[in-house]
Amino acid sequence: MDKKPNEVLVSMKNVEDYVLEIITMLNQGAEEVEIKGVGRDIGKAVDVYNMILDKLGNGIKLDSVSIGSESRDKKRLSFILLRVKKVY
Amino acid sequence: MDKKPNEVLVSMKNVEDYVLEIITMLNQGAEEVEIKGVGRDIGKAVDVYNMILDKLGNGIKLDSVSIGSESRDKKRLSFILLRVKKVY
Repeated sequence: MDKKPNEVLVSMKNVEDYVLEIITMLNQGAEEVEIKGVGRDIGKAVDVYNMILDKLGNGIKLDSVSIGSESRDKKRLSFILLRVKKVY
Repeated sequence: MDKKPNEVLVSMKNVEDYVLEIITMLNQGAEEVEIKGVGRDIGKAVDVYNMILDKLGNGIKLDSVSIGSESRDKKRLSFILLRVKKVY
């Protein structure tokens, strides 16, 4: 799967692990992070976003939400892509 | 849970059932349908949207996507709300 810089693919780990990873990225200078969830992990990606919002509040904003589908192993899977930006 | 007119809450039924329900609403004159998924059903709500897009193509557009969290039974649950509009 394509993985861009600052893209976090939410998958097997706990929500808290992704939250920590993303907050660390933002603290280390990332201006924007993309949170991606595919198939069953779409809901978890939204959980990650909500927990980051709880922790950082006005420090971030949700820049955009994209949904769509992509092929993997000949199956079509839905995905969500949440673009989160740092706010100063 | 609050349920607005033209809101379809994706839950226990099959994806195909929700797709049929929504296409019927659009065919019967609805200008806009809101597809909501809560918790584990967020991914299924996106599946429903993607299948409707497959079937109706340019006949619909995704007007907006909202995500957030709401309380239910003292737990906080993430949700997604997909606003789909008919295009002429």
